[in-house]
Amino acid sequence: MITIHGMQDSGNCYKPRLLMALLGKPFHHVEVDSLDGSTRRPAFLALNPIAKVPVLELEDGRTLPESNAILAYLGEGSAFVPADPFERATMLSWMFFEQYSHEPNVAVRHSLLVYPSRKAQATPERLAETLDGGNKALAVMETALTRSNWLVGDAPTLADIALYAYTHVADQGGFDLAAYPGIRAWLSRIEALPGYQPMTWLPGT
Amino acid sequence: MITIHGMQDSGNCYKPRLLMALLGKPFHHVEVDSLDGSTRRPAFLALNPIAKVPVLELEDGRTLPESNAILAYLGEGSAFVPADPFERATMLSWMFFEQYSHEPNVAVRHSLLVYPSRKAQATPERLAETLDGGNKALAVMETALTRSNWLVGDAPTLADIALYAYTHVADQGGFDLAAYPGIRAWLSRIEALPGYQPMTWLPGT
Repeated sequence: MITIHGMQDSGNCYKPRLLMALLGKPFHHVEVDSLDGSTRRPAFLALNPIAKVPVLELEDGRTLPESNAILAYLGEGSAFVPADPFERATMLSWMFFEQYSHEPNVAVRHSLLVYPSRKAQATPERLAETLDGGNKALAVMETALTRSNWLVGDAPTLADIALYAYTHVADQGGFDLAAYPGIRAWLSRIEALPGYQPMTWLPGT
Repeated sequence: MITIHGMQDSGNCYKPRLLMALLGKPFHHVEVDSLDGSTRRPAFLALNPIAKVPVLELEDGRTLPESNAILAYLGEGSAFVPADPFERATMLSWMFFEQYSHEPNVAVRHSLLVYPSRKAQATPERLAETLDGGNKALAVMETALTRSNWLVGDAPTLADIALYAYTHVADQGGFDLAAYPGIRAWLSRIEALPGYQPMTWLPGT
């Protein structure tokens, strides 16, 4: 059985857990607290030299870092990856948007506000910059989700899972989703998918 | 014929140009200067609401943003995409690493140092942060490229093209590649590939 090394309270780590729940597939979860130095220990660095969670570990010991690459691997051949090459590329495009334009603002602003270790970086400029960047990313999603039920084509894909992870807790970073009715309706559509589990869920619980 | 809207002096825009050169395939180039407001004009926003280059435009008018998603689309079925699913996911993992851990440090530090519009953001803290983050990303690459000629498997993939784009001009961001002999040898291997073209190259020139 595959193992996902991750932190319960992390959107990036939630992505592969949510996909596995939606696929109805079993997996092991190993909790790794990225805030207490666990990701800097030699045993973890052997799994992922970038010292970040999540990491996927296959039964034969091979490992794969980067949440969205893990989604691509675990989702391959499933209904969450479009058959059409252009739709598949569009799905990846949203996933790169998530890591470049969304997560570094929406998720990072939350960590700046909440984690004591980030306090020194939580300057007024940085908080303003991430608020602006996060709202720009949310506005791009709102435009897309006003036109369509899902980010790509007419069914949920890995792009929806990747962007759901931090969007559904955007309020923790000080983002008010009241201004984004398209996003709120889309969040509800994802939460109604068969097999959906919330971020707190871990396998075996 | 496909069109790549991009800026000559941008590593992200160079990625799909380099891939097309290596594949020996023709394409149109439309120069878009992201520094003079061109990406904020309605005509460009219709191509890409995220207001960023590059954007791929197909013959039928469909468009695709995000440099690494464009690589995935243009490279599909070519020798630059491994057949093995795990190697393909590992290739994507490096591409997400590029956009999350490498480009926001190595490329952004260059833009902070060079572009007048970024001057206000070029604080000592931001320059120190990007120097540290960039060297961490380069160290991860160095470890991989000391063990192997290419980032994934035993042949060049889209991951090498994606990471070559800003690594080969890392000195412009104040990064000294003398400390990274594995990276320097890898840069030379890429530059020796049949069809290779430098960043300044545009089709028809």
